[in-house]
Amino acid sequence: MSEKISNKVINFGAGPGKLPFEVLKDVQNELLSYGNSKISILEMSHRSNDFKKIVENAQKRLTEILNIPENYKVMFLQGGGTGLFAAIPLNMMTTGSADYIVTGTWSAKAAKEASKYGKVNFVTPPTKTYTEIPNKSTWTFNPNASYVYYCDNETIHGIEFHDIPETKGIPLVVDMSSNFLSKPIKISKFALIFAGAQKNVGPAGITVVIVRKDFIGSAMPICPSIFDFAVVSAENSIHNTPPVFQIYFVGQVFEWIHKNGGVENMNILASKKSKLIYDIIEESQGFYLCPIKKDCRSRMNIPFRIKNNEELENAFVAGAIALNMLQLKGHRSVGGIRASLYNAVTFEDAQVLANYMNKFYKENN
Amino acid sequence: MSEKISNKVINFGAGPGKLPFEVLKDVQNELLSYGNSKISILEMSHRSNDFKKIVENAQKRLTEILNIPENYKVMFLQGGGTGLFAAIPLNMMTTGSADYIVTGTWSAKAAKEASKYGKVNFVTPPTKTYTEIPNKSTWTFNPNASYVYYCDNETIHGIEFHDIPETKGIPLVVDMSSNFLSKPIKISKFALIFAGAQKNVGPAGITVVIVRKDFIGSAMPICPSIFDFAVVSAENSIHNTPPVFQIYFVGQVFEWIHKNGGVENMNILASKKSKLIYDIIEESQGFYLCPIKKDCRSRMNIPFRIKNNEELENAFVAGAIALNMLQLKGHRSVGGIRASLYNAVTFEDAQVLANYMNKFYKENN
Repeated sequence: MSEKISNKVINFGAGPGKLPFEVLKDVQNELLSYGNSKISILEMSHRSNDFKKIVENAQKRLTEILNIPENYKVMFLQGGGTGLFAAIPLNMMTTGSADYIVTGTWSAKAAKEASKYGKVNFVTPPTKTYTEIPNKSTWTFNPNASYVYYCDNETIHGIEFHDIPETKGIPLVVDMSSNFLSKPIKISKFALIFAGAQKNVGPAGITVVIVRKDFIGSAMPICPSIFDFAVVSAENSIHNTPPVFQIYFVGQVFEWIHKNGGVENMNILASKKSKLIYDIIEESQGFYLCPIKKDCRSRMNIPFRIKNNEELENAFVAGAIALNMLQLKGHRSVGGIRASLYNAVTFEDAQVLANYMNKFYKENN
Repeated sequence: MSEKISNKVINFGAGPGKLPFEVLKDVQNELLSYGNSKISILEMSHRSNDFKKIVENAQKRLTEILNIPENYKVMFLQGGGTGLFAAIPLNMMTTGSADYIVTGTWSAKAAKEASKYGKVNFVTPPTKTYTEIPNKSTWTFNPNASYVYYCDNETIHGIEFHDIPETKGIPLVVDMSSNFLSKPIKISKFALIFAGAQKNVGPAGITVVIVRKDFIGSAMPICPSIFDFAVVSAENSIHNTPPVFQIYFVGQVFEWIHKNGGVENMNILASKKSKLIYDIIEESQGFYLCPIKKDCRSRMNIPFRIKNNEELENAFVAGAIALNMLQLKGHRSVGGIRASLYNAVTFEDAQVLANYMNKFYKENN
């Protein structure tokens, strides 16, 4: 392994995080005039034909790269994941209750928000620390639940599902904010998939929602219009003024993924990049410590401690910054280090981090 | 008046509309690296110190240019004006009812959304066409109303309030989406002021809210967290990931307004620009027709018909496009022509339109 340390800045942030440089460059180039429009994308009417095409092309490309069946609708919503935490029960909690699999901060927050709108059953036993996906033998589903909710990748704790939970026919809802488009997914297993853009597909300010069409049209009367799937879907995500720029941007990222081997290649890269880092952690004989059980470690967000020693961790982060590796400090609720390896982080970027980890280990072990 | 027609593109769109060229240019220049950060603003963590400063600076500059008293909080919300239509009753309809002054499409939509959360009283008599602000002698307030709501400028119909409604002590809520920062306003007259950015202050995707602090903390239990003023305010609009880019952008526009004479100068320009167009309409002896009563004509959005003749109107729009004047077609619900003269539309831009209107009049009268 080369000891060469790159001078290029690498953003290992957990989101908003690194975006594909090619896309950023294109967006910058046409920022003053979109296509032949002579106006900036930032000045473009959401009712213009140009923008309608932007929405439709983004939907088409996403449908292609994820192989989305015809009985699903792709929508763009505002309010981030936290907005969806409310929108999901407001649209889908038709029986008055829902099941939540809680494996980290984000699914816990989603469950708390849902409890405003009905009864929340916890599928998994309560836990104070999130270091594993509880064994499936401990799971209890409520047969009356409107849906089962889970978070496929817990950004803060670094826990990722490597298979799809079996829910015995109860509709499945998933938050894929931080691993969206990092792997192929069998859409037909889900009632709804959502992802805040600001991890793998764009800047903050837009949430991609893929919903099975028969779950559109059942919103509670108290549901705000901007969250009512029937309202949003009827006007193809242009009911009120959407964040034109973000929809344009995620469309560009969908194109970028398509040109770079699709989710199949993102999947291969995610495995290769994360293996590089996890192998160093494993081989460090306790110098680097990842608290997460091996069978559910995230390929996107790798949290680790350094000998549980804050001083060493601060030195690690400071040394990384000096080498232009940014945002490696762990989440304030967990501490330590967190390396996020989203699609835009290249294998070479991960190698730079790996080299630094090896060097830091040798110097501080 | 010069007959010279500029070759520069002018965007007269009603929103998203024209943005200050200087701001667009600056944003483009630093799109790949914000300040000394070496990363794009689009990749910037919402928890970073850089972003905290961006939020605080935007708040400070807005506070300065609008002279906002200390007992008000400036917040940034997602979901556009339509989101606020729900957020306002969800936070403020504490008595179970509210009064709505309906003078156009947008206030009508706001009233409809509010009726999901309590009783809506209509202050003004019902009307099918929106061409005036009903005489104040016809207004009826409900003394039990939690607040009185109105829209200061109806973008579609072109109706603008030129004074602040007197509500006999009932808290006043105003939608200023399409004339925000076009004039000084006496903030202390209001309980809440909101504005979707995509008219006068930035790209779509962020809503500026100025709320008197004693109206924070009374949200209904069913209020989604992203709309709960207490939640948003407690973390200074960084509860969940906000649209980092839009907050950065509106901050730049606030700076631009500050550098260009503040809202005092925007006010003078708005009067001058709109007078130019209204004078041509008035002097055209019925060739150009503005249906709106003179005492409430909008300085931002000027709707007019051309002899009520669609063929002439289509020719007017086509001729304008050929001369690089874009987005002059009227709203689909009203027809005719609409010229929007937001802050970023210069006096010279308005003159180009005025010249074209004079020429078109001579050729087609």
